[in-house]
Amino acid sequence: MRLLAILSLTVSACLPFGDRLTRVLDRAGVVDLTYPLDERSPSPPNPRGGPFTLESLSTLEGDGILTQRYCTPADLGTHLTAPRLLDRGQPSVAALPPRGLYGPAFVLDLRERASKDPDALLTRTDVTAFERRIGRKIPRRALVFLRTGWGSRARDLASYRNQDAQGRLRFPGFSAEAARFLVRERAVTALGIDTLSVDRGVAATREVQRILSAAGRYGLTNLAQLDLLPEVGAFVLVAPVKIARASAGQARVLAFVPK
Amino acid sequence: MRLLAILSLTVSACLPFGDRLTRVLDRAGVVDLTYPLDERSPSPPNPRGGPFTLESLSTLEGDGILTQRYCTPADLGTHLTAPRLLDRGQPSVAALPPRGLYGPAFVLDLRERASKDPDALLTRTDVTAFERRIGRKIPRRALVFLRTGWGSRARDLASYRNQDAQGRLRFPGFSAEAARFLVRERAVTALGIDTLSVDRGVAATREVQRILSAAGRYGLTNLAQLDLLPEVGAFVLVAPVKIARASAGQARVLAFVPK
Repeated sequence: MRLLAILSLTVSACLPFGDRLTRVLDRAGVVDLTYPLDERSPSPPNPRGGPFTLESLSTLEGDGILTQRYCTPADLGTHLTAPRLLDRGQPSVAALPPRGLYGPAFVLDLRERASKDPDALLTRTDVTAFERRIGRKIPRRALVFLRTGWGSRARDLASYRNQDAQGRLRFPGFSAEAARFLVRERAVTALGIDTLSVDRGVAATREVQRILSAAGRYGLTNLAQLDLLPEVGAFVLVAPVKIARASAGQARVLAFVPK
Repeated sequence: MRLLAILSLTVSACLPFGDRLTRVLDRAGVVDLTYPLDERSPSPPNPRGGPFTLESLSTLEGDGILTQRYCTPADLGTHLTAPRLLDRGQPSVAALPPRGLYGPAFVLDLRERASKDPDALLTRTDVTAFERRIGRKIPRRALVFLRTGWGSRARDLASYRNQDAQGRLRFPGFSAEAARFLVRERAVTALGIDTLSVDRGVAATREVQRILSAAGRYGLTNLAQLDLLPEVGAFVLVAPVKIARASAGQARVLAFVPK
């Protein structure tokens, strides 16, 4: 298999770059980590930014052409939170450098603990155990995703938000110590999660997002289909809508997985 | 150089897929073909969909967090026109298959003719001459971009729209015969251009877009920085915001260019 891969890469090396890369991606599986953007997109209860709306300005039946206008909170559905969210000295969505929009994905799994405890946190010890198991350090510029199992609730918003009797959101997240370790010691590009926030639901402060913002890194929330990614080996591309001066924005997130 | 490329690919073949692909892209130049989305984004005069607006719901100064809501015509700025635009049997933006969101780019140049004649059209003969010069047919699933020079006008909307005394838009485009040839005989994935439309400004009908729509292919308009792409060799990734049921949507378009 390895020999075959080397051979096939060597042959493709004679093709132009664009053709060669297309072939490499064609041989991989593709997983769209993005939810469709509509009225049912994952959102907190009573979002400040109001609902998503899509209005037809002309129709195929009446006008022969379908044109539309839409309105949305910048942080609805699968989206990117730019460092600017909490820090005015840091880049907005449009200002994130393109080199930070792709990288290898590393997927940590919290499903078992989160199924028993919705307030479960990924700890620094979990990260260390993960690195021991995969036999290497998470490299610089990785995208580190936390798979909590919450993705299976995304089409039932009440269960996804999981509010308790006091109205508090109850879903798992990164711990601040794990986030700090990943950002400072591993120089990750981004942290991503299959819930409403990189901070767990009951968190009183946005400590994890603050760690990201202060370091100029971004977060990805409401990621879809994280269960289809391997722990190690996927390539991920993050393409946020390039809104000038925005602190957040919908992102198309695509993963390519070796077969 | 070729030997070096082969050797380096062979060495990288021992890395996990995600790391390997990251290295391949890191070695390439990256060109963001996307304009920032704001009030000055390329748009037709008096767009049906109204203006782009970005509203702050909370501020860093007052609330410690910047949250926003935005409204936009789905066809403002750098955007993708889905086949659904003119044909209800065809895919919306969200339904476009991910395999159609990347491919090798081929860039045809109309700058010289367009500088003398704003109604200039790319003809089928131009395509044939291009293929003869590059020594190969445009392969299946290519993204074919037309570089008209209009990109240099994009920050001066009056000059970009170039309306004449009768109010008609005057900018160049693909001819229907060239589009038909590229879609039917070359099975391209998409046609892209650095103007407001794949059809030239004075076109009374949307013939080129109709050819794309009928074939289930998409268009890319208001592409930025096409002058930084080589004729052949770039790899392009197209990531539209995944709006359900939309006929068009803003897209982040990134090109990777071999150095």
